[in-house]
Amino acid sequence: MIEVIDDIKLPRGFKAVGIHSGLKKVRKDMAMVYSDAICTSGSAYTTNRVKAAPVQYDMSIKDKAKHGVVINSGNANACTGMEGMANAEKMAAYAASLLGGDASDYFVCSTGVIGVQLPMEKVLCGIKCLSEALSDSYQASLDAADAILTTDTVRKTVTASFEIGGRTVTVTGFAKGSGMIHPNMATTLSFVLTDAAVSHSTLQSLLGATVEDTFNMISIDGDTSTNDTCIVLANGESGVNIDSDDKDGLFRAALSEVLGELARKLTKDGEGAGRFIEVSVEGAKDKKNAKILARSVVSSNLVKAAFFGSDANWGRVLCAMGYSGAEFNPDDVDLYFRSAKGTIATLNKGVPIVFDEAKAKEILLEKEVEVLVRLGEGDGKAKAWGCDLTYEYVRINGDYRS
Amino acid sequence: MIEVIDDIKLPRGFKAVGIHSGLKKVRKDMAMVYSDAICTSGSAYTTNRVKAAPVQYDMSIKDKAKHGVVINSGNANACTGMEGMANAEKMAAYAASLLGGDASDYFVCSTGVIGVQLPMEKVLCGIKCLSEALSDSYQASLDAADAILTTDTVRKTVTASFEIGGRTVTVTGFAKGSGMIHPNMATTLSFVLTDAAVSHSTLQSLLGATVEDTFNMISIDGDTSTNDTCIVLANGESGVNIDSDDKDGLFRAALSEVLGELARKLTKDGEGAGRFIEVSVEGAKDKKNAKILARSVVSSNLVKAAFFGSDANWGRVLCAMGYSGAEFNPDDVDLYFRSAKGTIATLNKGVPIVFDEAKAKEILLEKEVEVLVRLGEGDGKAKAWGCDLTYEYVRINGDYRS
Repeated sequence: MIEVIDDIKLPRGFKAVGIHSGLKKVRKDMAMVYSDAICTSGSAYTTNRVKAAPVQYDMSIKDKAKHGVVINSGNANACTGMEGMANAEKMAAYAASLLGGDASDYFVCSTGVIGVQLPMEKVLCGIKCLSEALSDSYQASLDAADAILTTDTVRKTVTASFEIGGRTVTVTGFAKGSGMIHPNMATTLSFVLTDAAVSHSTLQSLLGATVEDTFNMISIDGDTSTNDTCIVLANGESGVNIDSDDKDGLFRAALSEVLGELARKLTKDGEGAGRFIEVSVEGAKDKKNAKILARSVVSSNLVKAAFFGSDANWGRVLCAMGYSGAEFNPDDVDLYFRSAKGTIATLNKGVPIVFDEAKAKEILLEKEVEVLVRLGEGDGKAKAWGCDLTYEYVRINGDYRS
Repeated sequence: MIEVIDDIKLPRGFKAVGIHSGLKKVRKDMAMVYSDAICTSGSAYTTNRVKAAPVQYDMSIKDKAKHGVVINSGNANACTGMEGMANAEKMAAYAASLLGGDASDYFVCSTGVIGVQLPMEKVLCGIKCLSEALSDSYQASLDAADAILTTDTVRKTVTASFEIGGRTVTVTGFAKGSGMIHPNMATTLSFVLTDAAVSHSTLQSLLGATVEDTFNMISIDGDTSTNDTCIVLANGESGVNIDSDDKDGLFRAALSEVLGELARKLTKDGEGAGRFIEVSVEGAKDKKNAKILARSVVSSNLVKAAFFGSDANWGRVLCAMGYSGAEFNPDDVDLYFRSAKGTIATLNKGVPIVFDEAKAKEILLEKEVEVLVRLGEGDGKAKAWGCDLTYEYVRINGDYRS
């Protein structure tokens, strides 16, 4: 039994904090998570060839034990050359000098404007404040979740918990990101903390597999950023050892719940999004082809614009499947649109079905809608998540830097 | 010397015509081009796995000699199953019965709504009218160019001509398309007619190579349609044989001018486009990498939205290069924005340069702007063309089917 709640709940032994250091005008802009007990970690990074300094730094120290993570928003420390690299390392080293351990015990994450050097005086001053204000209080965890946000309109948190041998394991996560989101581990900053004991290799492989089915299946706008990072820290304070005790794969399921729900929250808060779209593909030749199809449909500008207009435009869905590169036979496609208001079938074995346009409109006017594709070519299944393309998206992104 | 004019001019021996058959409410919706002398042809088709019936039909007869092409707009004859296939063939067969030759002597092209059967009574009646009204007049050629349009706001025509041995060769082209345009032979309908004599194999290979550098380098919205087709017909009436007489590659250059100019016209008329964007990549490792980089930048929603806001957002350009999959070193990138109002440098060897924001805005407020990327990693060069992402694009595509 895994219990999932829509909130943050620090696992045993973790502290957090979020403050305003002056990188942003008013809102909180620096956060830290920390565990006295040394943690194992798993991490995943943007596949963009242009990687921000903190991403390069984290990748260089990712296999070592960890105490925590230092995070700033408001400045991405990307395209900042040697000076940027030195600054990322300086952030970790300064945290270590205040809290113990080595620079390599701390991950560093940044998000915000590209191409501007970090104002290190503010940043170092911020790290000092963070280290002094670390707390295991609920408010401190909320502050951390808030401090990493940029154009987000809501905080994104989720917690899953389960019991093994009478002991409770907590897996909590928080994330930021609403634009520049696209499949390819391409998602923003996300942090997962757990009091399970998990070996580095298990954590890394579970994270890799879970990211593939969650963060890599969402798309806001097709752009993959320079800074995207997902980090999991496990400090073992629950006394439950996943490698030896978790026969039923509860930890894996909990991690999947947390990353899946964070991914959906990111999508729902997509820049200018008016409508949440889930694309489900069933009966594809195999999982790989199912994923390619689902991602292609959810990433299509024409499909997204059709949803903005609540238009049951199955032609665009089929078209996006067609150019996806996946293997499938167009004559096998059954296609449905559904929401809380009901379901309409639009294609049967690739042939259009006459449907009630008024009913279709009613279904697609809902805030959350689903495209269901059934192929009957195998048992490949996948889901992808996205949002509609709106005036608001264009407005926000036509006016971001200024 | 190749002379290029911004107009249509039928080569010797070709006739054309455009009429209103009733597929659309008011505007012309059927066209034909025809040559008494039998033509060689070259053709290129959408790479979408979902191919409309006329595309499947054309691909099955593409290697045979041709008299002409029958075209309708208003209905794509796509996702129409066996009945759609029979209808495409019927269109060709009926044209042959009226004008001579076999069904396989006529290409068929359709564009418009997906998933609705063609009203064949109107279509066949239209083909009869077309065959009777064929003419070599200027007006008839304009009518043909107009009859293939759908959401286009302007007619797209261009003519190149050159002399070999005192004889003039004419290469004229017309095209339609303003949405659903993306690299991968992804473009709409386009027709090129020439009175050169060119073997089928030469024509096919020249077309393939030229499409790669023209139609495949433009993007409006990242969607590849079910119907895209490009056809070249050569009837030899000029008396100039390209295979034996064209030592200087004039025909290839003329074809490149015609397809390149049609591609740029399609882009400038992109759905809702307010601004024409040219992305030039120089000094890439090789041509392949240059093309991948240029296409990725011109296809990025975030880059397109930045141009809508006249924002010199070099970070988004670099980011789109980074996730393109191309090989390059971010530390080699010099990046400029330019237009008729001047040039600004924003990155030097990957490091941001402080620039005058007011000057940048002035440059980017122009209707035609260029992104210039210089890498110094080799002699790979490429250009790609696109447009900004606007409110109007969202409006048009949120409300297309209805």
